[in-house]
Amino acid sequence: MSKKLYEKTIRTEKIFSGRVIDLQVEQVELPDGKQSAREIVKHPGAVAIIPITSEGKLVLVRQYRKALEKEIVEIPAGKLERGEEPGECAIRELEEETGYKARSLQYLLSFYTSPGFADEIIYLYLAGDLEAGHVNTDDDEFVELLEVSLEEAEAMVENQVIHDAKTAYAVQFLRLRELRS
Amino acid sequence: MSKKLYEKTIRTEKIFSGRVIDLQVEQVELPDGKQSAREIVKHPGAVAIIPITSEGKLVLVRQYRKALEKEIVEIPAGKLERGEEPGECAIRELEEETGYKARSLQYLLSFYTSPGFADEIIYLYLAGDLEAGHVNTDDDEFVELLEVSLEEAEAMVENQVIHDAKTAYAVQFLRLRELRS
Repeated sequence: MSKKLYEKTIRTEKIFSGRVIDLQVEQVELPDGKQSAREIVKHPGAVAIIPITSEGKLVLVRQYRKALEKEIVEIPAGKLERGEEPGECAIRELEEETGYKARSLQYLLSFYTSPGFADEIIYLYLAGDLEAGHVNTDDDEFVELLEVSLEEAEAMVENQVIHDAKTAYAVQFLRLRELRS
Repeated sequence: MSKKLYEKTIRTEKIFSGRVIDLQVEQVELPDGKQSAREIVKHPGAVAIIPITSEGKLVLVRQYRKALEKEIVEIPAGKLERGEEPGECAIRELEEETGYKARSLQYLLSFYTSPGFADEIIYLYLAGDLEAGHVNTDDDEFVELLEVSLEEAEAMVENQVIHDAKTAYAVQFLRLRELRS
């Protein structure tokens, strides 16, 4: 890591500690010796799953996102519990939100969602060989399931019914996989 | 929108108002009549740009992200200023961070980065016909430029030097465009 870009913490002010996120403001020394403040959201990390049925359909969940004040459609996803391994979390979240138990799970990659202000990282998995079961969401989680073809998913990205980054990424991933095979 | 999923705000508690983000906690009534709290980060929105040089190279910026306590490599991006139109913002941010003035700019799509806890939306653009100029970053912004081939960018996603969602999306976008042409 080059020292040219490094920002040293001078002090940290803890603003909020919540159920999902914490917020802190860090006073930093910039590479040129001046100071600035960074507003930082701490998040436990999450997993997201690209579930493919035996018919080749992509399983999606529709839910109301209070931050957006609207419903959006996403691939199944959820926060890591304390000490939980991402692969376990992927299996658990997929089953809770969709009822599907994945008998095949492939780790793809991880990404940061908002590096400008948050440390959230998402571990992305491809799930197949799905066994249907019962949905069992958290008490404060209400979802509707959709199973769509890749072409339908692409139309949903186009018309922005699919409107979040991880899901748009997932749709591209599936198209690339198809074009390469 | 189905009422089955809607969450009605009972009250809003404003926690923090910062330079980049605000934080509030909303007490909501769930579809089943029970209540829960939602921790919500308000963000002004941002743009990200996929800049392609005349040699077909992707222009990337390396910067220290305090939220992650490390350097990462991203496509150029930046927050919307108050009242700023996303296309103008894309032209401005590209020039500030890379020195390049885009004579061609194509809007691709928008996406939410973290719908579980934040309202941040990113408007994504493809920029071409680039005219080199002078970098002029904000006072608290320090970046290094890289120009890489698509193959190099894919390797950087693979080894997670490229480790954020919008940039991984951009790399897939370029590969899809190439496979389809």
